[in-house]
Amino acid sequence: MATFQSLPGFREFYPDALARRNHIFRLWRQTASTFGFAEYDAPVLEPLELYKTKSGDEIEAQLFSFTDKGGREVALRPEMTPTVCRMVGAKANALKRPIKWFSVAEYYRYERAQKGRERAFFQFNADIFGEPGPEAEIELIALLTQCMCAFGLTEQDFYVRLSDRNLWFYYLEALGLDEAKTRAMLSAVDKFEKAGEDAFKAYEEQHGPIGAELKAKILAFLQIKTLAALEQTLAPVGGEKLAARLADWRKVLGGLEAMGLARYVEVDLGVVRGLAYYTGFVFEAFDRKGELRAIAGGGRYNDLVAKLGGPELPAVGFAIGDVTLGLLLEARGLMPTLVNASDIYCVIGGEAERRAAFADIHALRAAGYRTDYPIREVAFGKQFKLASESGAKLALIYGADELAKGLVKVRNMSDRAEQDVPAAQVMEFVRDFFGGE
Amino acid sequence: MATFQSLPGFREFYPDALARRNHIFRLWRQTASTFGFAEYDAPVLEPLELYKTKSGDEIEAQLFSFTDKGGREVALRPEMTPTVCRMVGAKANALKRPIKWFSVAEYYRYERAQKGRERAFFQFNADIFGEPGPEAEIELIALLTQCMCAFGLTEQDFYVRLSDRNLWFYYLEALGLDEAKTRAMLSAVDKFEKAGEDAFKAYEEQHGPIGAELKAKILAFLQIKTLAALEQTLAPVGGEKLAARLADWRKVLGGLEAMGLARYVEVDLGVVRGLAYYTGFVFEAFDRKGELRAIAGGGRYNDLVAKLGGPELPAVGFAIGDVTLGLLLEARGLMPTLVNASDIYCVIGGEAERRAAFADIHALRAAGYRTDYPIREVAFGKQFKLASESGAKLALIYGADELAKGLVKVRNMSDRAEQDVPAAQVMEFVRDFFGGE
Repeated sequence: MATFQSLPGFREFYPDALARRNHIFRLWRQTASTFGFAEYDAPVLEPLELYKTKSGDEIEAQLFSFTDKGGREVALRPEMTPTVCRMVGAKANALKRPIKWFSVAEYYRYERAQKGRERAFFQFNADIFGEPGPEAEIELIALLTQCMCAFGLTEQDFYVRLSDRNLWFYYLEALGLDEAKTRAMLSAVDKFEKAGEDAFKAYEEQHGPIGAELKAKILAFLQIKTLAALEQTLAPVGGEKLAARLADWRKVLGGLEAMGLARYVEVDLGVVRGLAYYTGFVFEAFDRKGELRAIAGGGRYNDLVAKLGGPELPAVGFAIGDVTLGLLLEARGLMPTLVNASDIYCVIGGEAERRAAFADIHALRAAGYRTDYPIREVAFGKQFKLASESGAKLALIYGADELAKGLVKVRNMSDRAEQDVPAAQVMEFVRDFFGGE
Repeated sequence: MATFQSLPGFREFYPDALARRNHIFRLWRQTASTFGFAEYDAPVLEPLELYKTKSGDEIEAQLFSFTDKGGREVALRPEMTPTVCRMVGAKANALKRPIKWFSVAEYYRYERAQKGRERAFFQFNADIFGEPGPEAEIELIALLTQCMCAFGLTEQDFYVRLSDRNLWFYYLEALGLDEAKTRAMLSAVDKFEKAGEDAFKAYEEQHGPIGAELKAKILAFLQIKTLAALEQTLAPVGGEKLAARLADWRKVLGGLEAMGLARYVEVDLGVVRGLAYYTGFVFEAFDRKGELRAIAGGGRYNDLVAKLGGPELPAVGFAIGDVTLGLLLEARGLMPTLVNASDIYCVIGGEAERRAAFADIHALRAAGYRTDYPIREVAFGKQFKLASESGAKLALIYGADELAKGLVKVRNMSDRAEQDVPAAQVMEFVRDFFGGE
């Protein structure tokens, strides 16, 4: 029955899948908390105009957009950035700076589903507002790496490619390109990794042949992998803006090195990130083997808060997706087996004994012990099998003979040792048992 | 700028609001876990047909529904029940019974926003599949009450009204009503609390005058508050079905009493829950003062899994909403002040000292300590104010003089006591400090 299936690109999370998702969310939240980021959340549905203002009218083709029953043009959020800019912008004066915020939320894009890409996916988003200097980039790239390392991933597994749209602008300006040509060239650079030399076609159709010398310089720029090589290339070019920008680069890479994170970061000017709104450093995280889509991406976007109606407020942020990260963790054997074991299983003689058991069961649960029991009458012997399967460390046995004597039998499930406990002292016994583990 | 506001009925969660929401979610999840329920999740967007099949075509008026770019009729989920029925139905043979599942998720209804009702709201949903007997109702009503008591709410604050559609059917049948009249009468009962005697108008228009004797019996039935009164009313009526059903009632209320929960539960046949798909016990939770909308509601729905394409599978479940519960917690002073305090604040002399601090900052965060520092250069004296405001228990002071001697100064923020610690032993010192608190 086709109508009773979920939509393509939308995932159902059965308990084992949800346990894996929760594992990812838990470590993201815990890591962000150690970095002093505060969690926020926002509507799933937003005015369509919010996304058009940020990304242009073309964005609508990729959105789940519609007209609601009140005649509003709305869209399921494809990302958090414009929403968080609106929220921060609306209270910019009241919020203590730097504003360090994060969220874990779901996003929706009407795209062709493929490996590592769903139509509904989760992201961890972290942003710093109010800090114009590259110190914010240090803090965020450190957070990004730790959000991966927290799972046991190492520099063998992933790396962060760091690039800079400003550096490209300053360099291309020094090479004689005007702004239109610079934008066309960045668009070519964005496509170069996938398309190779074909990436330059659109530029040449618009602006004429690039020329061998310029192309060689651009291709050489794309080969740069270290700060030293970057300085060597740009020192002869000169100019104040480039010099100041290189100082920013030294600050970012020096800070990350001081944190012990240099091994995760590579200079890579091939990353320009298609989105037009980035205004400075941009970065993406990838698996080292290059088998997966980008795991994370971000950068500086100093103009967006004002563009969306707020005050001028510098901003830098990134997002990690759950799908690609999940694939990487599975591939590296870093997704733990997550089991939902009980602490205690209550074995119940018969209906008459059920009431005595119920009093303890509820008290144990209210005290925080994961407690289970056979919901309907089950043969005594089979209940011990259920107790075993539940993963409980302790079985409480409510038999008629024992209860008649005011006793409950307890069994340590690991060594099968049994003893009788006065019925009134079950809670005390359990506290000692689990407290003393 | 109107386009840059959120949609009506959709909430933005700034960090303080999200901390309150997370408090609610955390206690819900923790409670469900102690009861042995497994968490799942499911798509936000579903085929519209799923909801029409469950609730009839009229439901569409209340939904955020639209045609997606692939021509599919879709809707934002207004509830979890049909989705979870599909999921459980699809794997019914593989899942160990009873299937005890819960979720915490957001739902969307195009309704007029009013106090306690948003267009987007969260629910805790818990369901038991595969258990036909009233033992499942005991387990769920116990879970429902504990999901409220976990916040510190008591029987002074809320109660659960327990009713039974089967009992109404059997009683009205014994009183001579056919199925059509019974359904019309239940519809009147559903409206009675709000509309009073007017509630019977639709019935009388359709089926003629009710008659004084029948109406008196129905009004008396609505007055019943205890099992004893229920038995007294139904014993003279007789019949096997009623007798068996009263045994079920004794089992549910006896079980809840054994768990110490009788004080939370009232017999109240005025609850029939409008939705047509319930097939037995139904229940709702309300604040005792009657100031708020229903906090929770649920019941048995044995036919829905099969109706949605799965096997015959008995089911019972309930949902608690976040909005009304949040209002009740605020009104009772049970919403804690949640602060996101740092553990450690690093005071940094100048740029030269920053690198030494960075190494410790990252190591401390990776070890799980919430560590903050001034992201840009700030005067030394002002940093101690920031350290204080951050709520940190410990300040680490990276001054030039100390670092030259290989030392870091540490200040206990509660008593202002300071001491010098060798720079290489900062982590060890921090572990001792927090371990020994």
